[in-house]
Amino acid sequence: MEVLKITSTQNKTVKEAVKLRDRRDREAANLTLLEGYRELSRALEYGRTIKEVFFCPEQFLGVNEPALLESLYQHGAKIFQVPDFLLNKMAYRDRPEGLIATMTMVKHDLASMPVVENGFYMIAEAVEKPGNLGSILRSADAAGVDGLIICDRRTDIYNPNVIRASTGALFAVPLAVTETSEVLPWLKNNKILSIATSPHAEPVYTDIDLTRSLAVVVGTEQVGLSEEWLNAADINVRIPMLGKIDSLNVATAATILLYEVARQRNWRCGTGKVKL
Amino acid sequence: MEVLKITSTQNKTVKEAVKLRDRRDREAANLTLLEGYRELSRALEYGRTIKEVFFCPEQFLGVNEPALLESLYQHGAKIFQVPDFLLNKMAYRDRPEGLIATMTMVKHDLASMPVVENGFYMIAEAVEKPGNLGSILRSADAAGVDGLIICDRRTDIYNPNVIRASTGALFAVPLAVTETSEVLPWLKNNKILSIATSPHAEPVYTDIDLTRSLAVVVGTEQVGLSEEWLNAADINVRIPMLGKIDSLNVATAATILLYEVARQRNWRCGTGKVKL
Repeated sequence: MEVLKITSTQNKTVKEAVKLRDRRDREAANLTLLEGYRELSRALEYGRTIKEVFFCPEQFLGVNEPALLESLYQHGAKIFQVPDFLLNKMAYRDRPEGLIATMTMVKHDLASMPVVENGFYMIAEAVEKPGNLGSILRSADAAGVDGLIICDRRTDIYNPNVIRASTGALFAVPLAVTETSEVLPWLKNNKILSIATSPHAEPVYTDIDLTRSLAVVVGTEQVGLSEEWLNAADINVRIPMLGKIDSLNVATAATILLYEVARQRNWRCGTGKVKL
Repeated sequence: MEVLKITSTQNKTVKEAVKLRDRRDREAANLTLLEGYRELSRALEYGRTIKEVFFCPEQFLGVNEPALLESLYQHGAKIFQVPDFLLNKMAYRDRPEGLIATMTMVKHDLASMPVVENGFYMIAEAVEKPGNLGSILRSADAAGVDGLIICDRRTDIYNPNVIRASTGALFAVPLAVTETSEVLPWLKNNKILSIATSPHAEPVYTDIDLTRSLAVVVGTEQVGLSEEWLNAADINVRIPMLGKIDSLNVATAATILLYEVARQRNWRCGTGKVKL
């Protein structure tokens, strides 16, 4: 493994990497930032292209980091050793675990979304908080969805905080980032029932047969789903709230729905394979 | 309403309030900080004692703030008007909405926890992240629990970020903050079944009769429940994970359990009253 050493914050490669904290720079370079052992491992595991890795051995938390670096190198990444202060300066979070990388962003077209029998999809409209989007990705993975459709191009799934909050689920779950006007005909053409959440709906989510080919749809943190989705969805359901505060976080609402689908399907994935 | 004006960051009342960001100062003064319209409204609604309110009308988001201030004044709070820069300086979050208050902390003894027929309790052990504890409070409220028991005195439920993340559920849900050694006999004496979550358990959470008097128990963010709880609990259950990442956030796991209990009870609260 060839390791290059960088010691200056003025180094061009370092400066280019740090710029990726900004969305416009990410889009211009078609690269994003990745930090931490778990995130890098999963990116590699799921076939993502890592361009550069900056590492600082003093910060490693475990013993597997050198093997990961070697593997990243074998997959074409350039490897740079940097001093402690420099890695901390480059990091966007508190504990980068001695590893920061630049990764090529992938286009997630709806056309590439696998359509399977009795498919189980989740659609998230305009979820803006990276932490919430990350949580939705984790829950979607855990509930065994066949795909997650992000229905608003303004949402930046390659925000480094989404990658972090998803604990790598971003790489594992089939993804599409598109717009409502594209998703509605896709659902219709593929005979996928859309089930939207609304506090004003009559049926409770548990009253609906969720074993058919379907997509559950959740909306923004502040105002829930748009009128467009509430009108277009095949079924609107509500999640009962039995307390006094009457508000659930969007990722929480998503999780409740996802796990009810998984329960009704007796923990079978969309492919029909029992994973229990 | 008597309004006092403060313009200096050197003012003693302001300095005392700002100190409450620190846990030791909160405990010494038996006071915590509260920000925002919703949080103050709910604290008042649920009978909490607000000592001082600092407000800045230029930051108000709605039109109901003056009425809330009047009501807080009638309930004994001292009202201070402060300039924009000073309120921002006092705030612990980005948008204090023109309102910051000091509130008396309440002791939450297990002895005061209501014991009801077919009770539905949640026990959270050593949840440390304020955001997760806040989310658990919201979900516990929404699922209609009869009480939430925080099983580790190190957890600071009066961290201002817990109050914020709970969107006021902290005031609405009956709470006890205690230790495992107190909770175990309390459960036994009150014939409350404890159901702990463990990835190594055989039964799936949906296979258990959750209509009896019970408490669901969740553990820390990092390592799950302690051995003590896993051994002491009447039943260990697992939440199936059908994906590739195999990890759920603690608040997410709590929500999945809470909503399965509520579903099995046909959305009746512990008191038997249907709230649907």
